[in-house]
Amino acid sequence: MSSVVRDRLGRFAFGADYNPEQWPEEVQDEDVALMRAAGVSLVSVGIFSWAVAEPEPGRYQLDWLDRVLDRLAANGIGACLATMTASPPPWLAHRHPETLPRRADGTLLSPGARQHYCPSSPVYRACAAELVETLATRYAGHPALAMWHVNNEYGCHVPECFCDVSAAAFRGWLAERYQGVDGLNEAWSTTFWSQRYHELAEVRPPRTAPTFPNPAQVLDYKRFSSHALLECFLLEKEILRRVTPEVPVTTNFVGAWHRIDVASWAPHLDVVSYDSYPDPHDPDTVVQAAFAYDQMRALHGKPWLLLEQAPSAVNWRTRNAPKAPGQMRLWSYQAVARGADAVMYFQWRQSRGGAERFHSAMVPHAGPSARAHRETAALGAELARLEPLLGSGTDASVALLADWCSGWAVQGSALPSADLSFEDTNLAHYRPLWTAGIAVDVVSAQADLSRYRLLVVPSLYLVDQPVAARLVEYVRAGGHLVLSFFSGIADSADRVHLGGYPGPFRELLGLTVAEFWPLPADGVIALESGGTGRIWSEWITPAGAEVLDRFAKGELTGLPAITRHAFGAGVATYLGTRPDEAGMAEVLGRALADAGVEPVLAGLPAGVEVAERRGDQRWLFLLNHNTSEVTVPVPGGAVDGLTGEPLGTAERLAGRGVLVARLPLA
Amino acid sequence: MSSVVRDRLGRFAFGADYNPEQWPEEVQDEDVALMRAAGVSLVSVGIFSWAVAEPEPGRYQLDWLDRVLDRLAANGIGACLATMTASPPPWLAHRHPETLPRRADGTLLSPGARQHYCPSSPVYRACAAELVETLATRYAGHPALAMWHVNNEYGCHVPECFCDVSAAAFRGWLAERYQGVDGLNEAWSTTFWSQRYHELAEVRPPRTAPTFPNPAQVLDYKRFSSHALLECFLLEKEILRRVTPEVPVTTNFVGAWHRIDVASWAPHLDVVSYDSYPDPHDPDTVVQAAFAYDQMRALHGKPWLLLEQAPSAVNWRTRNAPKAPGQMRLWSYQAVARGADAVMYFQWRQSRGGAERFHSAMVPHAGPSARAHRETAALGAELARLEPLLGSGTDASVALLADWCSGWAVQGSALPSADLSFEDTNLAHYRPLWTAGIAVDVVSAQADLSRYRLLVVPSLYLVDQPVAARLVEYVRAGGHLVLSFFSGIADSADRVHLGGYPGPFRELLGLTVAEFWPLPADGVIALESGGTGRIWSEWITPAGAEVLDRFAKGELTGLPAITRHAFGAGVATYLGTRPDEAGMAEVLGRALADAGVEPVLAGLPAGVEVAERRGDQRWLFLLNHNTSEVTVPVPGGAVDGLTGEPLGTAERLAGRGVLVARLPLA
Amino acid sequence: MSSVVRDRLGRFAFGADYNPEQWPEEVQDEDVALMRAAGVSLVSVGIFSWAVAEPEPGRYQLDWLDRVLDRLAANGIGACLATMTASPPPWLAHRHPETLPRRADGTLLSPGARQHYCPSSPVYRACAAELVETLATRYAGHPALAMWHVNNEYGCHVPECFCDVSAAAFRGWLAERYQGVDGLNEAWSTTFWSQRYHELAEVRPPRTAPTFPNPAQVLDYKRFSSHALLECFLLEKEILRRVTPEVPVTTNFVGAWHRIDVASWAPHLDVVSYDSYPDPHDPDTVVQAAFAYDQMRALHGKPWLLLEQAPSAVNWRTRNAPKAPGQMRLWSYQAVARGADAVMYFQWRQSRGGAERFHSAMVPHAGPSARAHRETAALGAELARLEPLLGSGTDASVALLADWCSGWAVQGSALPSADLSFEDTNLAHYRPLWTAGIAVDVVSAQADLSRYRLLVVPSLYLVDQPVAARLVEYVRAGGHLVLSFFSGIADSADRVHLGGYPGPFRELLGLTVAEFWPLPADGVIALESGGTGRIWSEWITPAGAEVLDRFAKGELTGLPAITRHAFGAGVATYLGTRPDEAGMAEVLGRALADAGVEPVLAGLPAGVEVAERRGDQRWLFLLNHNTSEVTVPVPGGAVDGLTGEPLGTAERLAGRGVLVARLPLA
Repeated sequence: MSSVVRDRLGRFAFGADYNPEQWPEEVQDEDVALMRAAGVSLVSVGIFSWAVAEPEPGRYQLDWLDRVLDRLAANGIGACLATMTASPPPWLAHRHPETLPRRADGTLLSPGARQHYCPSSPVYRACAAELVETLATRYAGHPALAMWHVNNEYGCHVPECFCDVSAAAFRGWLAERYQGVDGLNEAWSTTFWSQRYHELAEVRPPRTAPTFPNPAQVLDYKRFSSHALLECFLLEKEILRRVTPEVPVTTNFVGAWHRIDVASWAPHLDVVSYDSYPDPHDPDTVVQAAFAYDQMRALHGKPWLLLEQAPSAVNWRTRNAPKAPGQMRLWSYQAVARGADAVMYFQWRQSRGGAERFHSAMVPHAGPSARAHRETAALGAELARLEPLLGSGTDASVALLADWCSGWAVQGSALPSADLSFEDTNLAHYRPLWTAGIAVDVVSAQADLSRYRLLVVPSLYLVDQPVAARLVEYVRAGGHLVLSFFSGIADSADRVHLGGYPGPFRELLGLTVAEFWPLPADGVIALESGGTGRIWSEWITPAGAEVLDRFAKGELTGLPAITRHAFGAGVATYLGTRPDEAGMAEVLGRALADAGVEPVLAGLPAGVEVAERRGDQRWLFLLNHNTSEVTVPVPGGAVDGLTGEPLGTAERLAGRGVLVARLPLA
Repeated sequence: MSSVVRDRLGRFAFGADYNPEQWPEEVQDEDVALMRAAGVSLVSVGIFSWAVAEPEPGRYQLDWLDRVLDRLAANGIGACLATMTASPPPWLAHRHPETLPRRADGTLLSPGARQHYCPSSPVYRACAAELVETLATRYAGHPALAMWHVNNEYGCHVPECFCDVSAAAFRGWLAERYQGVDGLNEAWSTTFWSQRYHELAEVRPPRTAPTFPNPAQVLDYKRFSSHALLECFLLEKEILRRVTPEVPVTTNFVGAWHRIDVASWAPHLDVVSYDSYPDPHDPDTVVQAAFAYDQMRALHGKPWLLLEQAPSAVNWRTRNAPKAPGQMRLWSYQAVARGADAVMYFQWRQSRGGAERFHSAMVPHAGPSARAHRETAALGAELARLEPLLGSGTDASVALLADWCSGWAVQGSALPSADLSFEDTNLAHYRPLWTAGIAVDVVSAQADLSRYRLLVVPSLYLVDQPVAARLVEYVRAGGHLVLSFFSGIADSADRVHLGGYPGPFRELLGLTVAEFWPLPADGVIALESGGTGRIWSEWITPAGAEVLDRFAKGELTGLPAITRHAFGAGVATYLGTRPDEAGMAEVLGRALADAGVEPVLAGLPAGVEVAERRGDQRWLFLLNHNTSEVTVPVPGGAVDGLTGEPLGTAERLAGRGVLVARLPLA
Repeated sequence: MSSVVRDRLGRFAFGADYNPEQWPEEVQDEDVALMRAAGVSLVSVGIFSWAVAEPEPGRYQLDWLDRVLDRLAANGIGACLATMTASPPPWLAHRHPETLPRRADGTLLSPGARQHYCPSSPVYRACAAELVETLATRYAGHPALAMWHVNNEYGCHVPECFCDVSAAAFRGWLAERYQGVDGLNEAWSTTFWSQRYHELAEVRPPRTAPTFPNPAQVLDYKRFSSHALLECFLLEKEILRRVTPEVPVTTNFVGAWHRIDVASWAPHLDVVSYDSYPDPHDPDTVVQAAFAYDQMRALHGKPWLLLEQAPSAVNWRTRNAPKAPGQMRLWSYQAVARGADAVMYFQWRQSRGGAERFHSAMVPHAGPSARAHRETAALGAELARLEPLLGSGTDASVALLADWCSGWAVQGSALPSADLSFEDTNLAHYRPLWTAGIAVDVVSAQADLSRYRLLVVPSLYLVDQPVAARLVEYVRAGGHLVLSFFSGIADSADRVHLGGYPGPFRELLGLTVAEFWPLPADGVIALESGGTGRIWSEWITPAGAEVLDRFAKGELTGLPAITRHAFGAGVATYLGTRPDEAGMAEVLGRALADAGVEPVLAGLPAGVEVAERRGDQRWLFLLNHNTSEVTVPVPGGAVDGLTGEPLGTAERLAGRGVLVARLPLA
C-alpha cells in the first residue's frame, strides 16, 4: 500500500507542533539537538504564525522561518509546513471588521482567541490566498518541506457563522443547489408556517427565531457551513498543488464528533490527519478514541496521521489530568494499531504565556528532564523501529455506518425525543464490538458495503431512496445488517417518508413501526429477556420478522422490541429500543455469529484491546488498559515487532503495557 | 343558553386544523371523504397561509382557497377561517426588517420559524389589516364560513417585544395611562435609584439592565405587551365585524399559564377558544388541564371551543409520548365535561416536513389506517350524538381567583422568595378541589363573586383598594374565603400597602403578618398538626383569628401557621405557609364544609374525575384516569348519554373509560 | 489611634441610608424624632438622588436637600453626604446613549435599574464632576456635613464595561503601562495564536471570542477596569478635597469578593467603608463576614465603617430570610469586634416601591412598632455607650495573604482545574483560624509582613520576583509560612516561571512540583494520615522538605501531599492538596504552635467567636452564635463594657448573646 509517510520521510512520522517564534532564536539550537535525540522526524511549523509572518497587510517577514526550515533540513527533520491561515492577525479585524463571525443570536465573535474569521468572507479568503501563494512560492523545493498543513482544525470553534456575509454566500449556495426558489420551497417544505419564499433574496441563515426553526433550513445551513470551510481548504490546496505539485496536502480533523462532514472532505486530502485528545479522567475515552481512529482509517482505507495528541495533560477541559506513566505510550500505540503512520504532539515546547500555557508539551516548563520529555523521547526511539509497518492497512469485516448529515438532523429540534445523541448512539453500538476485539471500519453512507459481512447502522434517520436501496441490496445479496430505531424516517431534506415507518426499510425488516414511544427522562423499560431498554420504545407491527425480545412493561407490554428478519440471502436485525450494554452485546454477538465474523484475537483478558494491521506481514497490537499485569495469548510464530525477539504463545503484559507481535501473513 | 356552535353548525364541532396547501390539490378529495367518514363538522383553514395567499406585497393568490372552501361547503363541513396573520411571509422582514421583534437583551428574532413580528409595528399591522380586509370581503357570505379564527396563539412565543418600535408604542400607552410624566413617576416610585423621568421620551422598555429592574416598569410592560397584542386582535376583529357582522370571531388562547391576560381579552371574543396539550408523561397533567378548562368556561360563563389538541403525541416537548389507547378519547371528554362544545385537533394531515412533522395528526404519515385516525374518527361518531348537550353550562359554588397581573408581579425579581410560582400556587389550591369532585370556576378579580359560596384565593399579591373591598364585602355578606400568604401586599403599581401586612385584609383575617420568613431551597417546615409547610413561613400576630395550626420547628415555633376568622356573616381562612397536599385538602375540606359545598358526585374511586354540565338536563361525566377497571356510583334515573340505554346505580367503567350519564334536572 | 468617627461625630457612628426624597416632606419630622430616639448619629444622604437633584442637565434642584441637612444639623445628626453619581438620571442615557455599558458579548445594559454608566465615559465623568462640584460648593461648611460618600458600591453590577468607549480608554491605559506595542506583545505573549499586534489601535477588550481568550489580556482588562472606576472615584475626591479639605472622604466597598482591587484603592480613602450582607440561611456566613472585616480593618490598619447592613432580611437573594431575634445585634457586634467604628443600615425607611421594597429597614412598612425598629433602636442605645472604644485597633500575629490580581487570574479559563475558586480557597484556610479564635489580618502582597509571626498564603498563583523575594526573606528571617498549591506559578503577566514549579519558591519549600494532578469533579483523595484532600493533587519531588502527609490512593500513592521545610530561621509548610477541614486545622495548628501564636481567648465553647480590640484598654468580644445558652471563660479583672459591672471569670451567655468585656492593657 502506498504510504505518504514512507515516501516523504522514509521513517515513522514522529514529532510535534513547533512554534519557535514564541522563543528567542537561540533556543532553536537546543530544540533541534533535543529533537534529534528524541527521534523526531517531522514537525508542524507555523500554524499560528500569520501575525508574525505578515505584520502588516502585504508586508511579509519570513527570514526567521527560512532559518527554522534550514535548521530542520540540516538536521534531517521534515516540516509539515502550515499555511498559517487558522488565526488571522489583529490587523484583519481592525481593518475589515466584517470578517468577524457571528453566532446565531447575532453575537459578534471578537479577536483575542483564534479562528475569528467568517469562512465565507471574500476579504479573509483573499488575504489567506495571498499568504499561501507567498509561502508556497518561497518554500517550493525547500528540502525540509515534507508536507503542507492547511489551516488548522477547521470549524472546531466556529463551525457555522451567521453574519450577513455568510447569509449572502448561503443564498449563492442555495441558488446552485436548488436552481431557483421553487426547488428551495419544495425541499424546505415552506408551505408550513407561512415560510414560502418569493425570491431567494429573502432567505437568511437560521438565526435565533421565536421558536423551532425550519429543520431543512438548519440542516442545509450545516451543509453549507461545512462546504464554506471546504472551499477555504480547496482555495489553499489549489494554490499549493499548482506551486508545489509533488508535496502532499493535509489538514487536521478534530474531535470524534466533527462539526464538519469529514466524509465529504476526505477525497480532497492527500492524506487524512487527526488530532486526538482522550481524557485520562474518563475510562471510556479509549473506546471513543478507537471509534475515531477506525473512522479516520476508513476515510481513505489507508494509514492516517495522528497529527496532534497531548504528551500528558491538556488545559482546556474543566479539570485536566495528566497521562499516567505509560499511558501516553499505550494510547499512541492504540492509534498506530488502528492505522496511524504518524505520532505527533501538540506541542514541542510548552508556551510560557497564552491560553495554552498549561497544555503539556514535549519540552515542559521544567525542561527536558521532565517525565513528559523522557516518555516521548523513549517512544520516538521505539517508533523509529516500525518503518516496515508504514503503509500497512486493516481488513475489517464489519462496518459501522455513521452519516454526519443524518447525525446533525437527529440532534435537531422538535423531534420525538431530544435524547438521540449521535455520539452516544454510535458508541453504544461500537463499544461491544471494541470489547469483543472485532475489527470495524466506521464508514459513511457512500462507502462500498460489499466488502463487509456485517453492517451496523446505529442511526440513519435521513435516508434517500438510493442509499436505502443500497442497504436493501446489501442484505439481499447476503449481507448482515443491524439497524436501530429512528432510521429510514426522512429524506435528505428531512421530509418524512410517507406510508408507514421506516418507509424504505419495512420490507427489508419485515415490520412496520406504527408509533414512536420515546421514554421519559432517564427512563428505563423492562424487556422480556430480563434486560432493559433506554431512551426509546416503539410500537412495532411485525410482518415477517422474528421477535427476539419484547417489551415487558408499560403500554407496549408484549409487543416486539428487537426483531430479526431473513431477507434474500442475508439477515436484518432491528432494535426498537436501546438495549443496555449486555443486551447490545448479545444482539451484536448473534449478528456476528450469523455473519461468521471472528475477533482479531480471541481469549483476551478484560481491558486488553487488540487490533491488527496487515501489509506484507501481520502486526498484532495487544494493549493492556489495566493498571496491573495480565497474561495474553499470542498466535504461534510471532516475534516482537519492536525487538525482533520470538514470542511465546502466552506472554505477560505489564499494566498499561503494549505488545506488538509481528507474524507472517496467514 | 346560547351556543355559537349550535347556531353555526347545528352539531358538535369536531375537526382539525386543515392545511391543504401543504399537499398536492388532488389529496383534497381523499381529505373530504375521510372527513365525512370521521364526522368532521368544522376545520380551521389558512392559519399559516399568508405566504401562499399573498406571495408578494399586495398580490393575492386565493383561488386555491376558494376551491378548498367550496369543497368543504359542498360536503357540509364548516370553516373556521383564519385571518392568516400569525406568521408573516418572508418578504415582510426582507422589506421591513424593523418589523422583527427583539428580546430584552437586544437579540433580534429572525424569520424562519413563526410569530416573528413586533406586535406594535405599524407596518405589520397595516399589512395584516389589508390581508384581513381582502379575506373578509372575498369570503363574506361563503356558505362554508362558520367562524373567524383571528391570528393564532397570540403571544405564545413573543409575548413581549423590546425593540425601538415597541418602545415608542409603550411611551404612547404610558402617556394615555398616566396623563404625563408626573403620574408615571408616582406610579413607578422613580425616586428610588435615581429613576425619575424628566420627560416621557426618556422611558424605555425594561431591557437588560445592570441589576434588578423597576418592578412597576416590568409590570406595566407586561400590561402594555398584552394590550399591544389585543390591539392587533381588535384591529382584525373590527374589519371582520364590519364586513361579516353575522360571523362569530374567536382566537385561540394557549397554555394554562397564558402569557397574555386572557381575562381582559375575553369580552372582545364572540366565543372563547383554547388549545390544550396535556403531557402523557406527566400524571398531574389532567389536573392542569382541568384548571385551564375551568378558567376557559368561566371567562364567558358559557361553553368554549377546544380548538386544538393533539390526536396523540406532540413534537415540541423534550420527549414526546403518544396518547395511549383510549387516552385521547378520555381527555377529549374531560374538555367536554368542563364546558367544551368543540373537540378539534392540530392537525388534519401530518406534515411531511417543517418543524411539526412529528406532531401527530388525524391522518398520520402512515395514512388513515393508523390508530390516531381510527380513534379520532370513532370519537367523531360519538360526539355527533351529543348535539343536545350544546350550550349547556356548569353551576359552580366555588371560585378560584387567579389574577394574571398579580401572577406576573409575584414571579418578578427582588421578592422575598423566588419560589412563588403562579402556576404551582394555583394548582396546589386547585388540586384538592379537583380530587374531591368539586365544581370550580377559575375567575379573575373582576368576576361576580356573589354567585359563589366559597372563594379560594391562592395568591393575590397585588390588590387595589376596590378589589380588596369586594373581597371583604364578600365575606361580610356570608361568603367563605380561603386566602394564602403574600396576598394583599401591594397595589396595582406594586407599591406596598403601608401600616402592616396584608394591608387591606388585616381586619378581615383578624391578624397581622409581622414578617415574612421564606424557607430555604427545598425547605420543609413542621406544623403542630403533624403536617408540613413548604416555600414560606411568616410571623403572624393574631388579632381575633382562631389558630388552626402552628409552626412546630425553627424560629417561629409555636406561632400561628393557619388561621380562621369569623367575619361578618362569613369566614376567612388564612394560610401562612403552603401545606402539603393532605394539609391543603384538610383546610379546603373544612372550608367547603363551612360553606356547605358538596361534590358533584360523592363516593368515587381514586383516579375517577367527575364533572357536570346542566342545560335542560344534567350531563354527568365520569372519567376513569386509571388504567384498570373500577366501579362507579351513578345517580338513579340516569341513562347513558351516548347510547340512551338506562344505567344502573353502579356501573363498571373500563380503564381510561368514560361514562356520560344523562339525568333529568333535579 | 486617630478615629475619623470620634473626630467628626464625637460618638459611635450609628444610622442608615436616608432617602427622604421617596416620601412626602412632612414625614421628615417623624423621621428625625425617631432617629433621635434610636440614637442615630449619622445618616447617608442622597445616594440615589441625582435625578431629583438635577432633573435636567445643568438645572439643579437642591432646596429639598438643604432642608434635610438643616433638619439633621438641628437635631445633632451628621450627614455622610453622597455625591449622587452612582445612578445617572434617565436623561443621561437618553441624550448620550454611548454612556451605557456593554457586556463582553455586546449586550447593552439599559437604564431602569442602577449603575448604568460606562466608567470610562468622558460624558458621564463630566456630568458627575459638575454635580459633585455643585454639591461640594453648596454644602461646604454645612454643620451637618460629617463625611463625603462618593458614588456607591463601585463595580458591584458593572465591574467591567466592554463598549467602544472603554476600548479606547483601555488602549490609553495600555499605552501608558507598556510604552508601546512591543512591550504589550511581550507581556501578552502574543506570538501565541497569531495575536501579535502591529499597532495599539488594533487592541480591543477581551470580548466574547471563538474560544479561550488571551489570559494576560483578560487580566489586564480587570486591572484596567478597576483602575477606570478608581479614576472615577479620584475625580470626585479631588473636587471634594479642594472645596472641603477638612471633610473626610469615603466610598463603600461591597462583598467579600470585591470585583475591584480594594487594596489599590484603600490608600486613596480617608476611611475604609464596607457594606456587609450575611445570609441568615447560611451557617457559614459569619465566617465569611469575619474574613471581610479582617480585610477591611487591615486595609488601613485602623477602624473602618460598617456603612451598610440589613436590619433584617434583604430582597436580592433567591430566598431572603430575616435575621432572627438577636441576630442583627450579634452580627453588628461582630463587625465592631473586628474593627468597625460605625454600625449603619440600608436603609432608614423601607421603600414602598422600587426594586428594594422588600429590603428591611429601620422603619419597616408596618412602622416603628415593628421588631426591626425596636431591635435597631435598642442597639443604638447600647452603642452610644461605646465611645471609649472608638479608634482602638487589633494586634494580629497572623496574616492571610489574599492578592486580588492573582485571584482573578486563578479563576480564569484554560487552567489545570476550574475548581480554584478564590473565595473557597481563602475561606478554607481562614475558617480553622476563625474557629480557633486566632486574630488574623487579611492583607495584600504589598503589606508589611514583618509584623506577623505566621503568614498563610492560600493561593498566590501570580508572583513577580520582588514579591517572591519578600516571602522568602520573611521566612529566612524567622517567619512561619503556610503556602498552598498553585502558588508561585506565573508572573504578573501570567507568564509561567520556567525551570520547574513553583519557580520562585522551590528553594524556600525544599521541593519541586513535577506535575499537577487536579482531581476530577467532586474528587476526594485519601491521605496516609487518614484524612482526605480535595480539588487538587500533584507530584511533589522533595529536595530537603520533610513530608507531613502522603497520598494514599491513585497514581500518586506514596508521594508527598503536605511538607514542611526549615528554611533560614523560619519554617515553610506546603500543601499539595486541599485538606478537609480537620486536616487543614491540624496543619495550621502545627504552624501556629511552631510560630508561638496563641488564640485571643482559649477554652471557648463551640460556636462562640472571640475577637479583641485594643486602645488604651482591651475590649474582648464574646459572640455566641449558638441559639442556646453557654458558659464562657472571662479573664480576671474584666468589667462589662456596656454596663460597667464587674464580670466573673465564667459568665453565662444567652443564645445569640454578646459579652463585651473591658480589661486593662496587660
